Amino acid sequence: MRHSSYVIRADFCWSKSLEEVAYQENGWLVCENGRSAGVFAHLPGQYHSWPILDYTGQLAVPGLTDLHVHAPQYRFRGTGMDLELLEWLNTETFPEESKYADPSYAEIAYQQFAEDLRRGPNTRACIFATIHTGATLQLMDILEESGLCTMVGRVNMDRNSPPTLCEASAAVSAAATRAWIQEAQGQYRRTKPILTPRFIPSCTDELMRALHKIQQETGLPVQSHLSENPDECAWVQELCPGSTCYGDAYRQFGLFGGPGCPTIMAHCVYSTEEEIALMREGQVYVAHCPDSNTNLSSGIAPIRRYLQEGIPVGLGSDVAAGTQTSIFRAMAQAIQVSKLRWRLADPSLLPLNAREAFYLGTIGGGSFFGQVGSFEPGYELDAIVLDDTRYTPIKGMSLDKRLERTIYLSEDQDIRHKFVQGRMLF
Amino acid sequence: MRHSSYVIRADFCWSKSLEEVAYQENGWLVCENGRSAGVFAHLPGQYHSWPILDYTGQLAVPGLTDLHVHAPQYRFRGTGMDLELLEWLNTETFPEESKYADPSYAEIAYQQFAEDLRRGPNTRACIFATIHTGATLQLMDILEESGLCTMVGRVNMDRNSPPTLCEASAAVSAAATRAWIQEAQGQYRRTKPILTPRFIPSCTDELMRALHKIQQETGLPVQSHLSENPDECAWVQELCPGSTCYGDAYRQFGLFGGPGCPTIMAHCVYSTEEEIALMREGQVYVAHCPDSNTNLSSGIAPIRRYLQEGIPVGLGSDVAAGTQTSIFRAMAQAIQVSKLRWRLADPSLLPLNAREAFYLGTIGGGSFFGQVGSFEPGYELDAIVLDDTRYTPIKGMSLDKRLERTIYLSEDQDIRHKFVQGRMLF
Repeated sequence: MRHSSYVIRADFCWSKSLEEVAYQENGWLVCENGRSAGVFAHLPGQYHSWPILDYTGQLAVPGLTDLHVHAPQYRFRGTGMDLELLEWLNTETFPEESKYADPSYAEIAYQQFAEDLRRGPNTRACIFATIHTGATLQLMDILEESGLCTMVGRVNMDRNSPPTLCEASAAVSAAATRAWIQEAQGQYRRTKPILTPRFIPSCTDELMRALHKIQQETGLPVQSHLSENPDECAWVQELCPGSTCYGDAYRQFGLFGGPGCPTIMAHCVYSTEEEIALMREGQVYVAHCPDSNTNLSSGIAPIRRYLQEGIPVGLGSDVAAGTQTSIFRAMAQAIQVSKLRWRLADPSLLPLNAREAFYLGTIGGGSFFGQVGSFEPGYELDAIVLDDTRYTPIKGMSLDKRLERTIYLSEDQDIRHKFVQGRMLF
Repeated sequence: MRHSSYVIRADFCWSKSLEEVAYQENGWLVCENGRSAGVFAHLPGQYHSWPILDYTGQLAVPGLTDLHVHAPQYRFRGTGMDLELLEWLNTETFPEESKYADPSYAEIAYQQFAEDLRRGPNTRACIFATIHTGATLQLMDILEESGLCTMVGRVNMDRNSPPTLCEASAAVSAAATRAWIQEAQGQYRRTKPILTPRFIPSCTDELMRALHKIQQETGLPVQSHLSENPDECAWVQELCPGSTCYGDAYRQFGLFGGPGCPTIMAHCVYSTEEEIALMREGQVYVAHCPDSNTNLSSGIAPIRRYLQEGIPVGLGSDVAAGTQTSIFRAMAQAIQVSKLRWRLADPSLLPLNAREAFYLGTIGGGSFFGQVGSFEPGYELDAIVLDDTRYTPIKGMSLDKRLERTIYLSEDQDIRHKFVQGRMLF
């Protein structure tokens, strides 16, 4: 179906704000030119002649956004989980990412990754590729074809990296980045480049300066990693004695949010007061990755604190340190780790609840893409429709409970239909 | 297939001990009269004429044991997760369990529960029913029919419970328990009764004395809850001023392990030094329920400590405070919460690894049923055979990695065959 104006009939749940989820049983969602015109209890007269997609009894929620995922790590998710970050990078991650120098390897692996994403509940994602320009463009081609909306980053690394993943110099890395942006230009409707210095330890000052220049010229957004692990934080402090905190090391190069430089930082487990102030000032997006932070024994990010500060927060799968691509799983895990943090470390920050986690996985991350992640009028129409009878074989359960069960119990196999920007994927 | 002597060809993983997993690619598992005669790299001559079940390329592991699950809570799993234990019991659990007074409700709900178990990776389970004798016997009938091996408890509650779940007196509760045991006698091959005082707050001293007497007469095993939540622990201290710890409140009534009284205690998150000594002395089984302890914000049990003490430990789903029946999920969560506990609370106890979690979910809990949970010679032949190509579409990955991925990524849909005591369920 290619027309982008129609009506969906289903049971709807969507966030209006962090505090409020709206529910409409047996409602009508109007899609007008790819955007929501609202959800109605009774279909207004002017839409009576529009095509109707009747999913009566099924559950429709906004598409989910994965703010942080590594496509070239997809193949080894669920292995090497008994290591910490820096060891895990050297033992598992870097050897695998090196394989993406080979276009035929990249083709197969990225097809598997994209197919997983296509079938799952996420409609948007911010994705790390590798340093390989060719493979990054292959990934962008494949994702464009999938119908999903994504931002994809060719990764920059010019120090402290294995020879197979270390670019020859800052100049070489910057030139390759420019060539990649050039080549992607005008090629895609749904797939956008995003600047991706891997993290401070992998990037020389000269490279950071060059990326800042590219950012200024192109206005491209930025994604990277921040304050994930104690050893990593200590290393950054050594590498950047002139920075007041890890975040400041990005900020000094103009790559930490602010006007015209939308930025996502993954993790933020160990952000100091100073760093939190910089994140707020730059409106830097936190990509909260609870599965990854657990699997690599990193810790638990103080998400409620960030929300209290008005810092934007979304969820990330962080495959392959996280094992699951579904952001429903990240919602459940965000709630779960916040409870353990409350109990074990800091009773001053109350646990997140299901309503808040749903917001984070929809509008929270979606807003990095614009008006995305809700069915409120004007939002781009990203939606998934689930048949929840496999895990809720019970008639008459209220919509708020069906939503909570969907967060904890749904699997990709339960998804019946998926829409991105009003376009039906299946 | 009803003969119980045959050979399975597959890729095998099984625990030999807490420290050692054995792997055999393209091996031969010989089942002789329902028990393993070992796994062989080459099939010994004497078995050449036996029937062969050829699952070449698929992964076979021992059936998993769920040491703690509430059958009547299955229907509402994944809802009410934003509450703590005592509030959750009153708001969600007790109203639902009250419905099992109605045999037609129980029939439908227990059929759904048993069907979920039958399709999943668990072959053994220790199960709480409710105070309703009729519904408990229905559950036992249904489980017997499913082919699984289980222990099922009619629950005792005669104080601090809502009127619909509070038995009239200790004498009434004890008499009903005797009648239930009587009625179950000789009815089942795979389904055994287990004494089930809900927890100290729900049982008067008189009831505990009566249950001790029944235990002495019948030799039945015992299951209950222990030191799950700080408020609950404080309450038990108030209720039992004469006990030195929560565990001692059970021990004083002779229901805390020791010769002739095999006992499972779920949770053990807040066990004191004194309680740990009693658990070791009585060889009380800890049912570690990481999903539940996370969802109800209870905390994280010090499992490595218990293992160091030589206390037996298995895993529990604790549905519905846990949302997933699969003990593969409990393995992953046991690893995950142990990492967070290490990082946030106590660096002296190293995280559990995949090998140890696999042991806990197989032999760890299985040993409560006897020689169960391994393919070592003499063990009862419980096995599941998985086609792992959905989540591992990669040829040549080593068996230890395939096992780790199975822990993190497998779903019930990947299970192709299931054997209990040598009998093929599907």
